[in-house]
Amino acid sequence: MTTPPDFSQGAAFVRGRYVPIAEAAIPITDWGFLRSDATYDVVTVWDGAFFRLDAHLERFGRSCERFRLDPGLTPAQITAILARCVRLAGLRSAYVEMLCTRGQPPWGSRDPRQAVNQFYAFAVPYVWIANEEQRRRGLHVVVSEVQRIPAQSVDPTAKNYHWNDLTMGLLGALDAGGDTVLLTDGAGHVVEGPGFNVFCVNAQGVLVTPKEGVLEGITRRTVLEMAQAQGLAVELRALPAHELRGAREAFLSSSGGGVLPVTRVDGRPVGGGEPGPVTRQLMQTYWDWHKLPQFCTPVKGDA
Amino acid sequence: MTTPPDFSQGAAFVRGRYVPIAEAAIPITDWGFLRSDATYDVVTVWDGAFFRLDAHLERFGRSCERFRLDPGLTPAQITAILARCVRLAGLRSAYVEMLCTRGQPPWGSRDPRQAVNQFYAFAVPYVWIANEEQRRRGLHVVVSEVQRIPAQSVDPTAKNYHWNDLTMGLLGALDAGGDTVLLTDGAGHVVEGPGFNVFCVNAQGVLVTPKEGVLEGITRRTVLEMAQAQGLAVELRALPAHELRGAREAFLSSSGGGVLPVTRVDGRPVGGGEPGPVTRQLMQTYWDWHKLPQFCTPVKGDA
Repeated sequence: MTTPPDFSQGAAFVRGRYVPIAEAAIPITDWGFLRSDATYDVVTVWDGAFFRLDAHLERFGRSCERFRLDPGLTPAQITAILARCVRLAGLRSAYVEMLCTRGQPPWGSRDPRQAVNQFYAFAVPYVWIANEEQRRRGLHVVVSEVQRIPAQSVDPTAKNYHWNDLTMGLLGALDAGGDTVLLTDGAGHVVEGPGFNVFCVNAQGVLVTPKEGVLEGITRRTVLEMAQAQGLAVELRALPAHELRGAREAFLSSSGGGVLPVTRVDGRPVGGGEPGPVTRQLMQTYWDWHKLPQFCTPVKGDA
Repeated sequence: MTTPPDFSQGAAFVRGRYVPIAEAAIPITDWGFLRSDATYDVVTVWDGAFFRLDAHLERFGRSCERFRLDPGLTPAQITAILARCVRLAGLRSAYVEMLCTRGQPPWGSRDPRQAVNQFYAFAVPYVWIANEEQRRRGLHVVVSEVQRIPAQSVDPTAKNYHWNDLTMGLLGALDAGGDTVLLTDGAGHVVEGPGFNVFCVNAQGVLVTPKEGVLEGITRRTVLEMAQAQGLAVELRALPAHELRGAREAFLSSSGGGVLPVTRVDGRPVGGGEPGPVTRQLMQTYWDWHKLPQFCTPVKGDA
């Protein structure tokens, strides 16, 4: 085989080697798969620079500690691997995932402490969790009966692949004609959806986002910092579904597209049924902030 | 490459091919990994025959339906694949797993309905979830503070890889000097542990096992049928942790070893601190039943 590898669809780091994304695989016996015993983080690259890389690396480190996983690499080493994946794929804008799996204990052992943890990474073209039309008209969201896995069972602040609740909720929302789904906590509060946090500008004009039982998204943090910079009133607390339904504006936050307007909840318009002024301002600022030096880490090239 | 593949550690069926277990891998981009969007079942082979294969295939079918996964194979086709894995590995006794993953939707789509689901299987040497010493002296179990993921979030009757709660609980139990862990439902009832159901013979001599919030294990079913055959009084209901602690006997049920005695809970002896008479009788009957023709499906060879 002398054909050079084709990295055009993305590049991955798998057990010490860089491979095209289509060839990237994990052993079926890795507990990262067989027990979803893994953690991960996603950082984006926009216009040749990582956005808030330090925040993502720091959270990845905390997620690993929480689940007692050790990628065996320093943040600088991880950065070098991520950058090489992006460069191999030739991407100026990318969705870059780093992850750590438990690996597998020696044969016959069921002790997770005896496993050698494994680090993987990959870079693929930038992922939008809403398509262009959805971003223009606003997303139609369905509030699901499925309850988000509670924090007493799985710590939501440590990023994990336990998405069955989100996936089953999403299937129900898609069947109902919605674009995506929001799960609740079982007490009538919306918490989060598949890959995003939720915000609303409530009837009193206050920006509200759930405080507990959610991933503490880096984009969520960016929204809170933008809101502070713009002098918006903000409350972090439980968000009743009826407050969301009666809000002036609503939006989602995600590394997969930043601030994404929501214009319908359970089939009914939110506010005027169009992306509102606060949402539009935050969308603009989100992309403006991609030029702030303190948030940008250029994807460095090899010699 | 003219070296024949080495199936001595186990054999797997991966996307239409049979490969040594060490080479079996799933694409890193399969939602079966990235969203733990998958289901599975495990059937054992003992002395050259599958044990209760029909029950496992039936449950696998129901789990797939529950999560809207389609392996695209009939039970007869699955049986042929499992048998071939066992034969390739040259195993008389085996742990045989069949699984179905979501696969991956077309690029840019986040709609699970657009993914092509994938079937995998593998056979490895028989797995005991308790080692020989533990089976002789009885397992030391710790009741964890971690709550099992509730049925309102993920349906526990459809077998799934959402094990973070079980794994974090197990780590705590191992640190505390226990052998394994039991999780609770958050209301003081024990539910299940990593890969097993739990039973006790309570102070009144009644065999009790949790009814809700658990996987309906095939071995659990076998225990209930054995209990009926032996005329034991049985109750399926919530099992308070204090009832387990004050029981005469306790044991676990799992395809990974059948009936496994528990002799300590949270460091204190259960009953006399040794495997009790009901437990020992059920252990014996479990293996006796492996000779019943209605439960045995010989691993057939190719022509």
